[in-house]
Amino acid sequence: MVMTSSQTPFRHAAIVGKHQARGIRPVLEEIAEFVTSQGLDVSLERDTAENTGITDYPALSTEEMGAQCDLAIVVGGDGTMLGFARDMARHGMPLVGINQGRLGFITDISLERFRESLAPILRGDYEGERRAMLEGAVWRDGEVIFEGLALNDVVVSRGATAAMVELKVDVGDEFVANMRADGVIVASPTGSTAYSLSSGGPILHPSIAGWVVVPIASHTLSNRPIVLPDSGEVRLEIVAGRDASVNFDMQSLASLLHGDRITVRRSAHQVCFLHPKGWSYYATLRRKLRWYEGVS
Amino acid sequence: MVMTSSQTPFRHAAIVGKHQARGIRPVLEEIAEFVTSQGLDVSLERDTAENTGITDYPALSTEEMGAQCDLAIVVGGDGTMLGFARDMARHGMPLVGINQGRLGFITDISLERFRESLAPILRGDYEGERRAMLEGAVWRDGEVIFEGLALNDVVVSRGATAAMVELKVDVGDEFVANMRADGVIVASPTGSTAYSLSSGGPILHPSIAGWVVVPIASHTLSNRPIVLPDSGEVRLEIVAGRDASVNFDMQSLASLLHGDRITVRRSAHQVCFLHPKGWSYYATLRRKLRWYEGVS
Amino acid sequence: MVMTSSQTPFRHAAIVGKHQARGIRPVLEEIAEFVTSQGLDVSLERDTAENTGITDYPALSTEEMGAQCDLAIVVGGDGTMLGFARDMARHGMPLVGINQGRLGFITDISLERFRESLAPILRGDYEGERRAMLEGAVWRDGEVIFEGLALNDVVVSRGATAAMVELKVDVGDEFVANMRADGVIVASPTGSTAYSLSSGGPILHPSIAGWVVVPIASHTLSNRPIVLPDSGEVRLEIVAGRDASVNFDMQSLASLLHGDRITVRRSAHQVCFLHPKGWSYYATLRRKLRWYEGVS
Amino acid sequence: MVMTSSQTPFRHAAIVGKHQARGIRPVLEEIAEFVTSQGLDVSLERDTAENTGITDYPALSTEEMGAQCDLAIVVGGDGTMLGFARDMARHGMPLVGINQGRLGFITDISLERFRESLAPILRGDYEGERRAMLEGAVWRDGEVIFEGLALNDVVVSRGATAAMVELKVDVGDEFVANMRADGVIVASPTGSTAYSLSSGGPILHPSIAGWVVVPIASHTLSNRPIVLPDSGEVRLEIVAGRDASVNFDMQSLASLLHGDRITVRRSAHQVCFLHPKGWSYYATLRRKLRWYEGVS
Repeated sequence: MVMTSSQTPFRHAAIVGKHQARGIRPVLEEIAEFVTSQGLDVSLERDTAENTGITDYPALSTEEMGAQCDLAIVVGGDGTMLGFARDMARHGMPLVGINQGRLGFITDISLERFRESLAPILRGDYEGERRAMLEGAVWRDGEVIFEGLALNDVVVSRGATAAMVELKVDVGDEFVANMRADGVIVASPTGSTAYSLSSGGPILHPSIAGWVVVPIASHTLSNRPIVLPDSGEVRLEIVAGRDASVNFDMQSLASLLHGDRITVRRSAHQVCFLHPKGWSYYATLRRKLRWYEGVS
Repeated sequence: MVMTSSQTPFRHAAIVGKHQARGIRPVLEEIAEFVTSQGLDVSLERDTAENTGITDYPALSTEEMGAQCDLAIVVGGDGTMLGFARDMARHGMPLVGINQGRLGFITDISLERFRESLAPILRGDYEGERRAMLEGAVWRDGEVIFEGLALNDVVVSRGATAAMVELKVDVGDEFVANMRADGVIVASPTGSTAYSLSSGGPILHPSIAGWVVVPIASHTLSNRPIVLPDSGEVRLEIVAGRDASVNFDMQSLASLLHGDRITVRRSAHQVCFLHPKGWSYYATLRRKLRWYEGVS
Repeated sequence: MVMTSSQTPFRHAAIVGKHQARGIRPVLEEIAEFVTSQGLDVSLERDTAENTGITDYPALSTEEMGAQCDLAIVVGGDGTMLGFARDMARHGMPLVGINQGRLGFITDISLERFRESLAPILRGDYEGERRAMLEGAVWRDGEVIFEGLALNDVVVSRGATAAMVELKVDVGDEFVANMRADGVIVASPTGSTAYSLSSGGPILHPSIAGWVVVPIASHTLSNRPIVLPDSGEVRLEIVAGRDASVNFDMQSLASLLHGDRITVRRSAHQVCFLHPKGWSYYATLRRKLRWYEGVS
Repeated sequence: MVMTSSQTPFRHAAIVGKHQARGIRPVLEEIAEFVTSQGLDVSLERDTAENTGITDYPALSTEEMGAQCDLAIVVGGDGTMLGFARDMARHGMPLVGINQGRLGFITDISLERFRESLAPILRGDYEGERRAMLEGAVWRDGEVIFEGLALNDVVVSRGATAAMVELKVDVGDEFVANMRADGVIVASPTGSTAYSLSSGGPILHPSIAGWVVVPIASHTLSNRPIVLPDSGEVRLEIVAGRDASVNFDMQSLASLLHGDRITVRRSAHQVCFLHPKGWSYYATLRRKLRWYEGVS
């Protein structure tokens, strides 16, 4: 999981900013100047350039970034990173997250101290970490009607006016269980600390080659989360419940029909996050979740 | 995980019986005759032979079985299998379980129909499945004072008169968390359906290369199970709590002291279970645990 | 909770049927004839009469039923009973449930054997049981904009596109906690075996004078259900989260705004269910929920 | 639950100290002087007097304190209070807790500021709160072989070498369920934030007239805590499992036999705690348990 630091430092960084964030322009300019001062070429992601009106750096499409850059610096929270990481997944570009607010699970460099955290990373001195992604598709009458990548989870949910959704879960050619619930989550290790955790799932270390399948508000008392290997295809078939919907991270398809099947498998692409040396996954759990923070 | 069936069928089976079981002698004789009739040599495990008084077959020590036999047939429940599987682990011998009572998780051939289940297996037609084992040790003042293998779990528990035990948990050189509880379980996928499940842990499919760490009756509300990779060493240090004890499966050491450290890592040995073709892990979960058995 | 059987048997029964149920007409006629044969006057609830076209018995409005009848016989499932029980609550009329399908929690006389179960009840030989109801209101800018009764629960839920809803919970003039979750349930003992149970709540025996407050998919690990006395008013204020909605049983108000407050208190009205002698609340739990149905 | 403040202030306070606590003597002297300065007579509990060697105040037995005093001031933690409250229960004497360390659930006056908290209470200006107690007995062959009071809980636990204990639970003359687990807890509202909470039970507000029954590490997935009315007798019969034991708070009986029955009912006695005005039960939950303390 943890990569050895690259021998050759980076040469061309792309900078991406959360578009709607207030006051993002001077922040991005400051970061761009610093990265330039460290000897790297700098480009801006096209939408970021357009939204902020910064014109001092080349503006590149996602495609062009993938071809020309060897590092992306994302300025925003976990949500911004999640969306961008999915988009860049097939380019295999490493990602660094700078957070303006409270540090996230995967955006762990604070804006206040970005120079001291970023400088060593730009020189090739970092903790690299690969995260598996889910590749989901919705099948109806033998055809794919929706597909997408998810870094966190694939979630099938009951319709707003339905009491529940019933899903038949299979893995490979084996029947797992019928689940009746508000919904069912298939979460990656990255997603195991998000919605899955709220629904009673365990935490999966990022290096675990598996997904956790967790029902949301199960109608069956004898439910329990299961961690499945990520080598097989997981299938969720809508057996009962009106107007269910599916989310691949935040990408959504509503009005699922009985017989629709959602398939989930491991994407060939991985996301690669770079953290400052000394970064600790467990410290992040304790800080973000107050995990095992004790009785006082 | 699932092995391709061996090209060459088995030649020499060892038979092991639960010593205390009533009426075990005729059962073992019947099985031994059947296995002989299928063209295999048959030996009896030495204690089994002595306890039952069966003298028609060679009686072998565990060591001799490991050297001479290529299959072990265990007659008893999951507990019998667990103990024997640990003993045989370093010989890498495949194991088949025949159950006199209710079928277990890992002893899944019923005595009533053993002939029809066993015959194909003896011909090399089976589902083989490897299970990881935990290798545990207790360190005091820099020395190992206790060690053992566990197929299910390593459990550290508070003393009977103590309100709790506090454990500092580390993985490799990283601090994970301080846990205050009745105890802490480190369970393999095999153990994930045993005590860990009772304590709120998830189910881990046997092919997951990880352990689940679960507190028993945590004093901290913000506890949650975590699945850790089995590649690193897990360490549990006794920080507080009188007279704690540790179990590697059922092998126990009491009167642990503050500063004692229990280390857990993946054993180089695996257990290999053979199941009849068509065996389903998920069906076993549903049958044994009534997992997702619904509201009527 | 359990009432002593009435000295005087019943004189005038109202019969109510699930309107949409197929083949309900002959079923209702059969029941009406039987109740008549036991010496009671029989009327039909107006909508039931209109939907089935049965004209042999007086058709009464809810109001008229409340004034003239001393027993209501509801033919349908728990959902039908729930709706009707709320409507009749202020009349204090005892209710009997006859179920065409699987027996429910509160509709526990099977259609197949309705005669032998109903006859003793009509003679005054029954187990009577009172259930508390929740009275809910939604306040905006100092005015009530929605109100209703609930036998099961009051549920505040996040909007479909919101990540969560944050609620400030108070009881009387005391602050309880801020809850960030998919939603929050305030359930009566009757509702404690419904959505609240799916969300991790405990079972409350019907005689407990309290509500259970349970978050749905809490964002906070250190959440835990709490059972509050039903003597105080519970208030849930929308603090964050777009487009939240509230349900009093199935009666719904969407598009809640920040600052809206949902108040819940005990209704002055109770529902009274009559069960056949020998009815057991705990047996119903075990049958309906497979509660404590063991490992096989 | 909350009592109106007494019209007449207190006249004679008994002071009780945790015997083993270091440096307790000057603390008790300081408190005794202060209480005297407020116009009350002061006595010391006999064991406290003997252990500390303080001879300036009359030393009274529990019996004499019950007869002569109208207030007890307990100096120590929740454990000290728990033991003393049980002893004083039949005298109905109100209790105030002064805590030398971290504030407890029921000992909520800090030593540092005891004067400003205690003065108003001694004048009759307080929040009074009554807590129900459990009265437990163990029956063998028709005779009571052990009995006691519990403020927190009655806990039946498996023997150290047994895999589980199986208990048949009844309430009044109704069968509730068979529970197979490490143990079963019957907790009062006071005990609902102790061991019961660690085992997955809900929080019961002190005014709830009920007990919560929670299994410890249930062997059955479809277990769920239940809140029972405190008006009936709860019975736990040992059905299986060697060497089980029972605790009424910390008073213990080991080596229970199959067929032994533990009965639990509401004691005729209540404990009455006095808190400073403005004390909040919910604030105590949030402080002690970090209940709903959020994700940062």
